[in-house]
Amino acid sequence: MAGHDDVRVDFRTDPSRYRHWKVTIDGRVATVAMDVREDGGLQPGYELKLNSYDLGVDIELYDVVQRLRFEHPEVAAVVLRSAKDRVFCAGANIRMLSQAGHGWKVNFCKFTNETRNGIEETSAESRQTWLTAINGPCAGGGYELALATEHIAMADDGNTSVALPEVPLLAVLPGTGGLTRLVDKRRVRRDRADFFCTLEEGVKGKRAVEWRLVDEVVPRTKLEETVRRQAEALAARSDRPANARGIALTPLERAIDGDRIAYAHVTCALDRARGIAEITVAAPDTPPANDVAAIHAAGVGFWPLALARSLDDLILHLRTNEPEIGLWLFRTTGRADVVDAYDRLLADHGADWLVREIRLYLKRTFKRLDVSSRSVFALVEPGSAFAGTLLELALGADRAYMLEGRRQGDDRSPATVRLTAMNFGAYPMANGLSRLASRFLDDPGRVDDLKGRLGQDLDASAADEAGLVTFTPDDIDWDDEVRIAIEERAAFSPDALTGLEASLRFAGPETMETKIFARLSAWQNWVFQRPNAVGPKGALRVYGTGERSEFDRRRV
Amino acid sequence: MAGHDDVRVDFRTDPSRYRHWKVTIDGRVATVAMDVREDGGLQPGYELKLNSYDLGVDIELYDVVQRLRFEHPEVAAVVLRSAKDRVFCAGANIRMLSQAGHGWKVNFCKFTNETRNGIEETSAESRQTWLTAINGPCAGGGYELALATEHIAMADDGNTSVALPEVPLLAVLPGTGGLTRLVDKRRVRRDRADFFCTLEEGVKGKRAVEWRLVDEVVPRTKLEETVRRQAEALAARSDRPANARGIALTPLERAIDGDRIAYAHVTCALDRARGIAEITVAAPDTPPANDVAAIHAAGVGFWPLALARSLDDLILHLRTNEPEIGLWLFRTTGRADVVDAYDRLLADHGADWLVREIRLYLKRTFKRLDVSSRSVFALVEPGSAFAGTLLELALGADRAYMLEGRRQGDDRSPATVRLTAMNFGAYPMANGLSRLASRFLDDPGRVDDLKGRLGQDLDASAADEAGLVTFTPDDIDWDDEVRIAIEERAAFSPDALTGLEASLRFAGPETMETKIFARLSAWQNWVFQRPNAVGPKGALRVYGTGERSEFDRRRV
Repeated sequence: MAGHDDVRVDFRTDPSRYRHWKVTIDGRVATVAMDVREDGGLQPGYELKLNSYDLGVDIELYDVVQRLRFEHPEVAAVVLRSAKDRVFCAGANIRMLSQAGHGWKVNFCKFTNETRNGIEETSAESRQTWLTAINGPCAGGGYELALATEHIAMADDGNTSVALPEVPLLAVLPGTGGLTRLVDKRRVRRDRADFFCTLEEGVKGKRAVEWRLVDEVVPRTKLEETVRRQAEALAARSDRPANARGIALTPLERAIDGDRIAYAHVTCALDRARGIAEITVAAPDTPPANDVAAIHAAGVGFWPLALARSLDDLILHLRTNEPEIGLWLFRTTGRADVVDAYDRLLADHGADWLVREIRLYLKRTFKRLDVSSRSVFALVEPGSAFAGTLLELALGADRAYMLEGRRQGDDRSPATVRLTAMNFGAYPMANGLSRLASRFLDDPGRVDDLKGRLGQDLDASAADEAGLVTFTPDDIDWDDEVRIAIEERAAFSPDALTGLEASLRFAGPETMETKIFARLSAWQNWVFQRPNAVGPKGALRVYGTGERSEFDRRRV
Repeated sequence: MAGHDDVRVDFRTDPSRYRHWKVTIDGRVATVAMDVREDGGLQPGYELKLNSYDLGVDIELYDVVQRLRFEHPEVAAVVLRSAKDRVFCAGANIRMLSQAGHGWKVNFCKFTNETRNGIEETSAESRQTWLTAINGPCAGGGYELALATEHIAMADDGNTSVALPEVPLLAVLPGTGGLTRLVDKRRVRRDRADFFCTLEEGVKGKRAVEWRLVDEVVPRTKLEETVRRQAEALAARSDRPANARGIALTPLERAIDGDRIAYAHVTCALDRARGIAEITVAAPDTPPANDVAAIHAAGVGFWPLALARSLDDLILHLRTNEPEIGLWLFRTTGRADVVDAYDRLLADHGADWLVREIRLYLKRTFKRLDVSSRSVFALVEPGSAFAGTLLELALGADRAYMLEGRRQGDDRSPATVRLTAMNFGAYPMANGLSRLASRFLDDPGRVDDLKGRLGQDLDASAADEAGLVTFTPDDIDWDDEVRIAIEERAAFSPDALTGLEASLRFAGPETMETKIFARLSAWQNWVFQRPNAVGPKGALRVYGTGERSEFDRRRV
């Protein structure tokens, strides 16, 4: 178990290193074929049989999704299938889960959930619609992956079925959105869902369609052709440009030197003794040309895209590899007017396919921050650039401290924050609201009022009055107040903070996505530490050993 | 710890037995004063200091709420205060939580949550509005209780504050709705909520108002008068009758004889070997007079009210005292037309204060069933009376099995089910939808179509086609199919089933109440078994001992 928690995971990969996925592109339609290498596990101790997956497989899938979006504007539909003859996917690898520690399991589920949510976003907002062709048994996480696509076609043969056998086989939940997507997305009747989720062997044929578990069953010989036709039809309705050139996601440069992590515009210093990560995001030095062609020419060098890639990787790295760093402190540096200029570019050219992708990538990255089980504080000081897109880091933080006035001996101007058009809906949270709207649930009109302050540099007292920051100590109080807040945070129980933050961050409306991260994940996390699942005689531990699991029969 | 789990708890009480609450009624306003007896704990091992509470205190509170609704139609506002001079309420007793097992803690929180939700329902739907006068420190569960009322006035003195110190003091969450009510009901800004929830000493005075933690602060000398005035004003707007006579909630008769539990219309047989409770609800023999006066005259003898009281008590009894009974099987007996006649009475006279209370009590009872961590199956057989109000038991079940046709050697008519007006909105689930609407999220028009079948006796094939039951085996298959379903259910891990059921039962919209039972409770349950809270060095265990808690600093 410790083995898992000790390994350092790198989320960066590229097609030349794929071991588990085959991507082929034919005109407007891509096919993503799962072909998991049995000996390709991220850790020793388990074999990835029957297209079962571990985090390594999912890291590649995430890369596939990202590259199809950025590198292939011409692809407007994606068919997910298995490259293996007799199985679609057996779900998350059970031996892997069985040997993993609690934190690893929770983190693994969170990342896989984010990727599946991202697939749904690709269909809905990038107009690159995912479909599934189920050509063999499709169980657990395999079916949950299919559920994240917009159309599920299943071979009508004796071998092929869909199943969520986690409860009967393993005493855990289908924790990657399956339960929520069954009853909320596909609106399967709850009593049928109940039965289905207790059925090891799953459901096939007509009943699977009648119960809405899949959209159609077709003879196996017709499966490929049927799904291809549907993919073509969906692609024809997409607004993705057929003849545009994609942007190559060249390797993301990152330097790790002891406790320092550096990307082009983002640096992170770990203070292990205090359990904090000091993250600094730098605005670019000069404003961009107001020109879409220049954005395409810059590609991954375009600052907002570089920012999204760096932050995304840093969040994943810290979440997975630095579990004892419980508090992330965000600072920014640079010129607010330059960030504002970039934001205007993003706002003005949202119809361009690449700008749309960049905006969506930033949205997903901020959402990843929202669901990270880390405390997040923002520190707004002289020299900072909390404007627009970067202001989201403060609005998304559990608290934002802003220095009022100047520091003694520092002749820079007092800190200011600035709203741009990008704060008013471009980056909705999982609850569907902007961070501003989530902040002012008590007074939605306030968000409209704030539109009148677009582009203004708000000093601490104005920012406080506008409700954009939590506290505004002056130079005399700043050091003590911030230090104490940080020390106290580090002293609290990480578990209690996780539950607190997950409860306070998502007021207001609920969506399928918030349900997955709240109701479903919270229950799964609970089950994942219960002896019935993970104890010495727990189902997850004895699965495949021939031993019988033994359960404490008390309901709680 | 075992001590807690072994004790048998009786939820029935009455004012002559109260030890912790004083209720006084003055015209249209009742005052409910908390005055917890230090030596009045339900268990040995802790003292209920500073108006802290345990399950016994909350059982009395629940009784207070019920009696004010039924016995005092004239009461239209309720002021909650402390009868102690220097403290309002310190929240749930920490020693009690510290020595309680996981199941006890979870059950305790569920019941207290239900009571607080019930207080909110009283304000909203019984028009008996609760207000709080905070006259002394009000912390944790004490403040959560205040949050469940519609107006919070706080004394403006040096001693009085509101606080949710669970995270800093105990490494657990404010788990009785506090976090949800802060950001969703009172719409406290999330960064302020974050700060507030990490502050042992809480917030008082103007900041408490500015942050929306309370509605007003008033000088201590004026507190009583101010709240009284507000209560009078709210009472004046209520539609509760000033001169009606209440219904005495006379002692609920219950006989427990070995593994049999019997109420007037409800019986329960426990099969401990199989882990099931066979619950049978009997319809009355004859239809009621269509006459409101007769309902009032019958009082607690009126069948729907007797049904609600019995089911309510049975659910609480089984949940608390029979944790190993994981599957509840519901059967009904009697005549559907008689149930239908009662339902017409409930439907036609919903404006009568007592009928309204009875309907709301049935609603709350079915909701209590929905959030119970037990599997629920309904068995629809010849001789049954699954009509209207009783049909809710089948619609709320995880599955309903209905026997198609006759049994060999049984010349009774085949089983039927019947919809009445009461199935179409009288008993909304926590998500705000009727059980029918929750069932047919895929096709809301279907609910309207079913209105055309009101009052019809639907046989198994018609009920199946209408989507009201899950399976309809005939006599040849029934015994095996039902037996296997029961045996399989009993064999699965109770924890996995709890997570499954909590996820599948509440599709569709979310409300503050579903958020409390899903997001918040699920996280609290998770935290409640983490070593940082309950381990030998966990905060909950070492609190008050002088020892320091030690935390595993890894985030998960």
